[in-house]
Amino acid sequence: MRLDLLSDVENLTAALVDIESVSGDEKALADAIHEALATLPHLIVERDGNVVLARTSLGRAERVVIAGHIDTVPVNGNLPSRIEGDRLYGCGTTDMKSGLAVLLRLAATILEPTRDVTYICYDCEEVEGARNGLARLARTRPELLAGDFAVLLEPSGAKIEGGCQGTIRVDVTAPGERAHSARAWMGANAIHKAGEILDILRSYEPARPVVDGLEFHEGLNAVFVRGGVAGNVIPDECVVTINYRFAPPASAVDAEAHLRELFGGFDVKVVDSAPAAGPGLTHPAAAAFVAAIGGAPRAKLGWTDVARFAELGIPAVNYGPGDPPLSHTKDEYVEIPLIRECERRMRDWLTAGSP
Amino acid sequence: MRLDLLSDVENLTAALVDIESVSGDEKALADAIHEALATLPHLIVERDGNVVLARTSLGRAERVVIAGHIDTVPVNGNLPSRIEGDRLYGCGTTDMKSGLAVLLRLAATILEPTRDVTYICYDCEEVEGARNGLARLARTRPELLAGDFAVLLEPSGAKIEGGCQGTIRVDVTAPGERAHSARAWMGANAIHKAGEILDILRSYEPARPVVDGLEFHEGLNAVFVRGGVAGNVIPDECVVTINYRFAPPASAVDAEAHLRELFGGFDVKVVDSAPAAGPGLTHPAAAAFVAAIGGAPRAKLGWTDVARFAELGIPAVNYGPGDPPLSHTKDEYVEIPLIRECERRMRDWLTAGSP
Repeated sequence: MRLDLLSDVENLTAALVDIESVSGDEKALADAIHEALATLPHLIVERDGNVVLARTSLGRAERVVIAGHIDTVPVNGNLPSRIEGDRLYGCGTTDMKSGLAVLLRLAATILEPTRDVTYICYDCEEVEGARNGLARLARTRPELLAGDFAVLLEPSGAKIEGGCQGTIRVDVTAPGERAHSARAWMGANAIHKAGEILDILRSYEPARPVVDGLEFHEGLNAVFVRGGVAGNVIPDECVVTINYRFAPPASAVDAEAHLRELFGGFDVKVVDSAPAAGPGLTHPAAAAFVAAIGGAPRAKLGWTDVARFAELGIPAVNYGPGDPPLSHTKDEYVEIPLIRECERRMRDWLTAGSP
Repeated sequence: MRLDLLSDVENLTAALVDIESVSGDEKALADAIHEALATLPHLIVERDGNVVLARTSLGRAERVVIAGHIDTVPVNGNLPSRIEGDRLYGCGTTDMKSGLAVLLRLAATILEPTRDVTYICYDCEEVEGARNGLARLARTRPELLAGDFAVLLEPSGAKIEGGCQGTIRVDVTAPGERAHSARAWMGANAIHKAGEILDILRSYEPARPVVDGLEFHEGLNAVFVRGGVAGNVIPDECVVTINYRFAPPASAVDAEAHLRELFGGFDVKVVDSAPAAGPGLTHPAAAAFVAAIGGAPRAKLGWTDVARFAELGIPAVNYGPGDPPLSHTKDEYVEIPLIRECERRMRDWLTAGSP
């Protein structure tokens, strides 16, 4: 299947959607993208596994990165794509093959952008971070990701979403002492003790800090609880797994310290964490982007690959035509006018007077 | 292996202990008991699976039941039995082959008790109630259990333990609504909501009612808690399994009503229940027993087969030489003097002037 990058952006989106690319099975789509980009003489194209990179090399004062993942969650009876009115339906339409189509259209048609651009199409975003194609590149060939500013074409409702909240999960353990439940007073009930952990969660007021003008919204929630030995035994352990979503500029270390203080009376063990990223909108390249796109940027509350760029010192934002709540749903669709708007505004930015 | 019922009670206990009889594997011991009792002309002996019954038929005004289970929990490197000083060590010494030895000694040596006696040796007491040999008989041949009063030779430290507390388990469910944990306020956290269930448990004051002069001690405890969908999802359900131990004369229906009132705001589902049994010490046959044994009876807090007799309308108590906390332990032992004392007092009761 050949991709026609000169077709209009909604047709290109449909073509991308119709090449199945569930995480781990992206080779056919990566091949099609690679083949299409490789014919373009103004781009230096490189392949790394199922990651395809293309970059201009015009000696511009700035280099920006435009990135998108090529994989989708499992197909759910929602292929092939179909158009109804202004909507294109199908698996990956919102998350994020419409964004990918914008990326490929810009790559193919802007021969002399006013900023050098590195386009990155990567695999395995929808699965555990260890398999993420962008993360692999950040580890093995970080020079390929170099740039002054990055835009991820993740679904954001065609609004700029800046930064991202970090996430940390901890196991907080309430102790107890076993006894037969007919003589409960001989022991100490760990599940009852865990009530104190839930008290802390229930009375917690999550912060809503404003960073670079964007309001974040933290959260502190039990996501798992487990305890119990047998139906007639007072339990000696109850573990509450807590997920804390924290706003930048706090680091994972700051977040851990906050949790250890909150749950000072209990054993606290970190399960995993991922850093927050500041909006980075004060960087001149970012400011130019915001000016070109228009609208009021808002904070990104979930965790996205924006944080991987932040870790490399590159300010990054999400900006894409998809509508986030439609991601991963059976009835996933994208509004075609928003794909066009997104392409037009990105084009304005990349072709505006050089910085 | 032949059992010598005329040997002294500690030797008989050792012989019983040395015939392994883990629940479900009691045939060898049931055979040995059956064979030994069958030679005694003053007893009518009957076999039902691995239950062995023997009864006198002297036309006395009262009939009492003396019962004990023949199975043990799994052997734990604690066989064969051994004597150290006044103690007999080994699997089942306390729970309850010492009591079984007392039963068999009484059966073999009291040719003309002043009350008719039904001796019952039954299987599968240490496992789920559906397999219990006494329960099977109560269902299929309740006439074999008929009597005015029953003594179970369960470990009770050679004190009379009257009645037993009932037990009911319920699942109390806290509801919620799923959401991504980065936008927790879009959902409702069921684990946090379960904090209200734990609040009720933590502030509950268990009753300590006095029934027929014996003090019971109720208990209301979470024995399991489970909730959680994924590490980044606000959970929509949290289930707390609660075990309520209730004193007689409350029925399982009363206990359920009490729990439904306590947890009125939540979905409450009964998992299982077993009835309480009153001490029954006001019955003349029981009073005569208490007088013969001496000491102050105390309430039985755990659930025992006493409740099965109570369901058949037969007052019953626990009275045996074993020490309850040693049951099911690797270092299980029984004090030999208590086995002898138990035999002597039971003999006094069964040979005292007829009622």
